[in-house]
Amino acid sequence: MTETEFLAELQRIGEERYHHKHPFHLRMHEGKLSRGQLQVWALNRYYYQSRIPIKDAVILSRSDDPEFRRAWRKRIVDHDGSTGSVNEPSPDVAVRGAAGGSAGGIEKWLKLVEVTGGSREQAIRGEGVLPAVRYAVDAYVHFVSTKSLVEAVASSLTELFAGSLIALRMGALRQHYPWMEHGLSYFEARVTQASADAQFALSWVYRNARTVEEQELACNALRAKCDLLWAQLDALYFSYVQPGWPPPGALRLKEQG
Amino acid sequence: MTETEFLAELQRIGEERYHHKHPFHLRMHEGKLSRGQLQVWALNRYYYQSRIPIKDAVILSRSDDPEFRRAWRKRIVDHDGSTGSVNEPSPDVAVRGAAGGSAGGIEKWLKLVEVTGGSREQAIRGEGVLPAVRYAVDAYVHFVSTKSLVEAVASSLTELFAGSLIALRMGALRQHYPWMEHGLSYFEARVTQASADAQFALSWVYRNARTVEEQELACNALRAKCDLLWAQLDALYFSYVQPGWPPPGALRLKEQG
Repeated sequence: MTETEFLAELQRIGEERYHHKHPFHLRMHEGKLSRGQLQVWALNRYYYQSRIPIKDAVILSRSDDPEFRRAWRKRIVDHDGSTGSVNEPSPDVAVRGAAGGSAGGIEKWLKLVEVTGGSREQAIRGEGVLPAVRYAVDAYVHFVSTKSLVEAVASSLTELFAGSLIALRMGALRQHYPWMEHGLSYFEARVTQASADAQFALSWVYRNARTVEEQELACNALRAKCDLLWAQLDALYFSYVQPGWPPPGALRLKEQG
Repeated sequence: MTETEFLAELQRIGEERYHHKHPFHLRMHEGKLSRGQLQVWALNRYYYQSRIPIKDAVILSRSDDPEFRRAWRKRIVDHDGSTGSVNEPSPDVAVRGAAGGSAGGIEKWLKLVEVTGGSREQAIRGEGVLPAVRYAVDAYVHFVSTKSLVEAVASSLTELFAGSLIALRMGALRQHYPWMEHGLSYFEARVTQASADAQFALSWVYRNARTVEEQELACNALRAKCDLLWAQLDALYFSYVQPGWPPPGALRLKEQG
């Protein structure tokens, strides 16, 4: 596959499997979720957020290329924040504090938890997180720990689709849940972060997947990542909203057509 | 805790969290599942069955006590079957073939898959298995790989409750789904296997959990195991049956009471 064909294939996978189409998100964007439902979403998804720097540290630990490691380190800073020292300047000027440090994505997500009425301490303890959410998130860390580095990096390519989902979401949240306004700084930062990260990862994966087989493994890694984002919302929908459907690619009953 | 108190605490946990109360099983035992629903259950649960000897091999590999290893080895034979050689006699005379070997639990479960109209090859490939089922099962293997040996062994103590569930189930399946009759050999064997295994594991855990803290870790391991059995049925119910409820111990919305 040429780079254009490869990107087209990734886009095709995202169109089919990325969680922008998940009914939980559709309801969120239509203003149909209650404050309690947004709260359990924020709290459960915090578990995912809290594991992102861990999975990025695993990826960092698996590369012997300093250039790659420097580029990838940015992600850990984005999520863990920085103290503003000269050695680790804030990547995000807008939220830099008096001391020049910046809040990371994890801290910003805790704000979202609080805005929805959840407890910061409960989120940090992981109390009440759905086991199925935990398993999906842990499967992600396990994936990047055990698959090839190309697959581990390719699993981040859901970020190709994050920008437009976040833009849509911020508009919808402001429209339907104006009381969430002060909890949206995570999303504001991610629009540019995710786009930059996705471009780096896409280019790196394309250069390092040297055979058709490796390109296919990279596509499968993106599918696997879509699966585990989707599975988290399935668990939430099932426990806290209603109906039922199999995720893309899973068995369907005859009566489900 | 004395051994009696410890067992009472385990029973209390099982009463609250074991999957005998899961609505998917309740519907199964009331005769309310369609053949398609039983088929996706058999197929998804095959993934769990297929990982049991793997998790038992992990536990085996973590003990330096030959006596323990000999006792635990029985479980692998129960599930993988045996060829009937003198060194590895069949534990299950009833199903021993002409050559003196015996079908193991995995082979018997494949019979169940076929009786429900599923494909043996599809089950073996794991095709169409719900990602959330896969994550829960993989979390089990990860649990026994990384926790203390006492916790790994204690996670098997759901077998304390398996006997009465299986007895109930066999009656219900024969009553409501008589066409399943030739697929029930797995359950027939498990009634006695699970009981013997549970007694050994209970006694071993009690002797090896020497402090209150270790007894509590053992109780938590049983909770964790109940969670992941429950999560598998949640995923099935959500994708293939209907409504919605949080598993025991997870957050509940106010409107869910």
